[in-house]
Amino acid sequence: MDKLKIIPLGGIGEIGKNMTVIEYGNDIVVIDCGLSFPDEDMLGIDLVIPDMAYLEANIEKLRGFLITHGHEDHIGALPYALKKLDVPVFGTDLAIALIQNKLDEHNITHAKLKTIQPSDIIELGCMSVEFIKTSHSIPGAVALAITTPVGVIIHTGDFKMDFTPMDGEPIDIARLADYGSCGVLALLSDSTNAESQGYTQSEMEIGKTFEHYFDRAKGRVIVASFASNIYRIQQVAEVAIAHGRVICLQGRSMLSICSIAKKLGYLDIPDEHIVDVESLKDYPDDRICVITTGSQGEPMSGLFRMANSSHKLNVGYGDTIIISASAIPGNEVGVAKVINQLYQKGAEVIYDKMADVHVSGHAHKGELSIMLAVTRPEYFVPVHGEFKHLYHHADLARDMGIDPEKIFILNLGDVLEFSDESAIITQTVQSGGILVDGLGIGDIGNTVLKDRRILSQEGVVVAVITISKSTGALLTEPELITRGFVYIKESEQLISNAKEALKKAAQKFAETPRHDWANAKSNVRTTLKNFLHEQTKRMPLIIPLIIEI
Amino acid sequence: MDKLKIIPLGGIGEIGKNMTVIEYGNDIVVIDCGLSFPDEDMLGIDLVIPDMAYLEANIEKLRGFLITHGHEDHIGALPYALKKLDVPVFGTDLAIALIQNKLDEHNITHAKLKTIQPSDIIELGCMSVEFIKTSHSIPGAVALAITTPVGVIIHTGDFKMDFTPMDGEPIDIARLADYGSCGVLALLSDSTNAESQGYTQSEMEIGKTFEHYFDRAKGRVIVASFASNIYRIQQVAEVAIAHGRVICLQGRSMLSICSIAKKLGYLDIPDEHIVDVESLKDYPDDRICVITTGSQGEPMSGLFRMANSSHKLNVGYGDTIIISASAIPGNEVGVAKVINQLYQKGAEVIYDKMADVHVSGHAHKGELSIMLAVTRPEYFVPVHGEFKHLYHHADLARDMGIDPEKIFILNLGDVLEFSDESAIITQTVQSGGILVDGLGIGDIGNTVLKDRRILSQEGVVVAVITISKSTGALLTEPELITRGFVYIKESEQLISNAKEALKKAAQKFAETPRHDWANAKSNVRTTLKNFLHEQTKRMPLIIPLIIEI
Repeated sequence: MDKLKIIPLGGIGEIGKNMTVIEYGNDIVVIDCGLSFPDEDMLGIDLVIPDMAYLEANIEKLRGFLITHGHEDHIGALPYALKKLDVPVFGTDLAIALIQNKLDEHNITHAKLKTIQPSDIIELGCMSVEFIKTSHSIPGAVALAITTPVGVIIHTGDFKMDFTPMDGEPIDIARLADYGSCGVLALLSDSTNAESQGYTQSEMEIGKTFEHYFDRAKGRVIVASFASNIYRIQQVAEVAIAHGRVICLQGRSMLSICSIAKKLGYLDIPDEHIVDVESLKDYPDDRICVITTGSQGEPMSGLFRMANSSHKLNVGYGDTIIISASAIPGNEVGVAKVINQLYQKGAEVIYDKMADVHVSGHAHKGELSIMLAVTRPEYFVPVHGEFKHLYHHADLARDMGIDPEKIFILNLGDVLEFSDESAIITQTVQSGGILVDGLGIGDIGNTVLKDRRILSQEGVVVAVITISKSTGALLTEPELITRGFVYIKESEQLISNAKEALKKAAQKFAETPRHDWANAKSNVRTTLKNFLHEQTKRMPLIIPLIIEI
Repeated sequence: MDKLKIIPLGGIGEIGKNMTVIEYGNDIVVIDCGLSFPDEDMLGIDLVIPDMAYLEANIEKLRGFLITHGHEDHIGALPYALKKLDVPVFGTDLAIALIQNKLDEHNITHAKLKTIQPSDIIELGCMSVEFIKTSHSIPGAVALAITTPVGVIIHTGDFKMDFTPMDGEPIDIARLADYGSCGVLALLSDSTNAESQGYTQSEMEIGKTFEHYFDRAKGRVIVASFASNIYRIQQVAEVAIAHGRVICLQGRSMLSICSIAKKLGYLDIPDEHIVDVESLKDYPDDRICVITTGSQGEPMSGLFRMANSSHKLNVGYGDTIIISASAIPGNEVGVAKVINQLYQKGAEVIYDKMADVHVSGHAHKGELSIMLAVTRPEYFVPVHGEFKHLYHHADLARDMGIDPEKIFILNLGDVLEFSDESAIITQTVQSGGILVDGLGIGDIGNTVLKDRRILSQEGVVVAVITISKSTGALLTEPELITRGFVYIKESEQLISNAKEALKKAAQKFAETPRHDWANAKSNVRTTLKNFLHEQTKRMPLIIPLIIEI
């Protein structure tokens, strides 16, 4: 008999590269296809995508990707996935438009993008999928109710419970409750804020904070936000216009996403209020509002360049900068650096430690409880979180009376298989992260990263010894080149002593028959390594090259 | 006429390497001598110390170092300073013992360490210095009242206002108020928590949280804390003993600092309650309490190794781990990683997001106001903070009525000079950070760091071409070695094509007269760079080596 399987290929034990497989018999649907930004130990890596070997091996079963919303950690891997997995992609209009934009950049023209609306139901093989309106920090977020032959799976996507949302359409909790009444087999729910007590504030609340700071501001107001947070941008724009300020959008992604959102009607800023950065000189400072990228202190973002004095806007005394976001874990130091630089330039900076200039897009414990209460699932699988979030979410479900035996904290690749009376992890399929670096997809592995780590900490020393193929005699003085190791000009003595040591080691070649040169070669490396460590207590990566002529 | 000067050489615009110079006429005293841990862009650097060129140039004026307490950011640079500046060091007993320990490790035997007690007054040239008891997260913290010929300077050191401290001796606010009554020329005050509203909790408060979790714990209790937070360790030990648990200390610094603190009477754990890690097997889990380093997720610390399964204690189901600290900015991701791993191993983890398991050692705004109110300074210089902290602290002082013209946010090296009626920044002396890497002090500069950054992101490619000195003819096939660039086994084709390109470029030597080889050389680099970038979109550091035989 066919079994229902849930297989997470991303988004478990991490906030990033979300991807969940739902499989029954000959049919597979995949929820989301996101990317992660690299950990700090993934040196030089541009981004990370889920390992999709399982999908490639089962491509004939694959019915499509179901996209919950247009954030990078839910759509970012599609350009890579669609090259090999040419199946339809279903999502709401903004998500689809953002995906299209992304595919254009990758010159992918063949994609089968299908725009759906909340409440739409589509049939994919033996499964039917209903898209249910939720609230999140980007318009068009949906939860999924997937009806399979053995029961309904609800996947919340990223959500919060905002009952006074900017778009006037709150999360469709009634529909979720309908499913709850009819019986939900399993709930997969967003765990991002499972550590946080209480409820998130409504997006609408922070409009008041903006009012307050716009009232006080005597010079320019510069607001940094996520480019995809259209609701936030809309709020800032409305307050700015009410205060008689023109609006200037800054940052590549801000311009591109706002343009898409305007076309689709999600962003409503009349053109006469928008000016480009060159025209700002025609307006007095107290008639200017800039909305920019850089709320995470990202290098080269709008706000980063303003703080660094490498932006046309010469930020300084009189300017009010509002950072309307929290630092994502890992970005704290970068954000603080930008704030410090802005203060040094004389600007007033308003950020989350000081005022309510941001609300989260992810449900707190209170809202997570509501989700559990209305869907009343038999099984519960916390998703979209680091392990600490998943455990807190699982604790909450247990406290709400879900059978602890029916709560599963999965690992990536785990196959959770449902039978009549139980569910069990039957096997683990290939999964993990594929590193993307430039044009290379998956060509950087642990060896390369280990070398990069050593190189980053200690630098590299290249030693070249040229010897006679026949006699082993040195043909020239040894060459010694270092990079990232010591400041050469101040270390001439060290380098010249190292060359001496190298020369002595190289003399072994002449003293040894050719078939024994392996020893002499390893002697060159060891001699250099020991000499340098003794002199500097550093262990650079050593590349010895023996050229035989 | 002689002028009073205040010159910060560290601790401004940063939380780290604190060092402040107070100078009058022929006398200089230096407050603290700390180190910083490297920023994330200081690749491979071990630690950073203040640039002390100004002190070296004025060594004949230098009367001594005044140490406010024994934390690394206040004492860590002394081993480097005392090698060149052989002057007395004054501090309370624990600080002096920790400095002695540090000097022993550096084999420095000549230091003139002078133990003082709170309320002691010492004369240093034309200045007299009173040490005033404060509260902080390490015993023996003091503020300094420095009486100069033109007025009193108060430097708070790191402080909080704990009126129910563990040692029963609260901050000597009366003495600070005495100085305030007589007139304080300038206050230099700790700005670390100037962003935070209200008041810090008393250290004593969190004892209740420990009680709660020890009551509930069915297995081992493992508490991670800063090794220098003796009060915290004392509290944990007392709760553990009351619950009939033996105590095992883990982590190198935990063992060494606790041993020093015990000798001085700051830590009181009767020996019969202390066991080593090997003996733990003789006790049931619910009779065990481990106190360990690693509250910041530091690699190789006790807790890090427990989370990584590389520690003798096999942490898992049943264990309760309490992380009794907040993550210092920059350590958030590392701490979260440890928490996630501990959850995965089945342990229960208690940390600051969940419970009051930590209180800060630095005054919040409320306490900063009290400090300003009792000392009533004419001039105010916020210290010990990033710029955002300094600006918030300055705002507070302004709100409390201090003349904005008399509030100075300094930069490192600024010379703040006092005359009869005013103070002014007259010049800027050499200052900044000296990078320490292994045995090298200051031998790593921007060039080396830039190379390390490129190496860390893109790796290195070494090309060796051996040509005839006389004809320019290639003598062997070009060699091409890469590290941290691509995974060699999967890139054989790329490497072999690159060698071909290299060979073609190398043929230029034979076609050119020898005096024009410079062009041919740069052509080798450019050819390789362009080829690799085109093929991979990566820009490794390229080291071309032309060997002439």
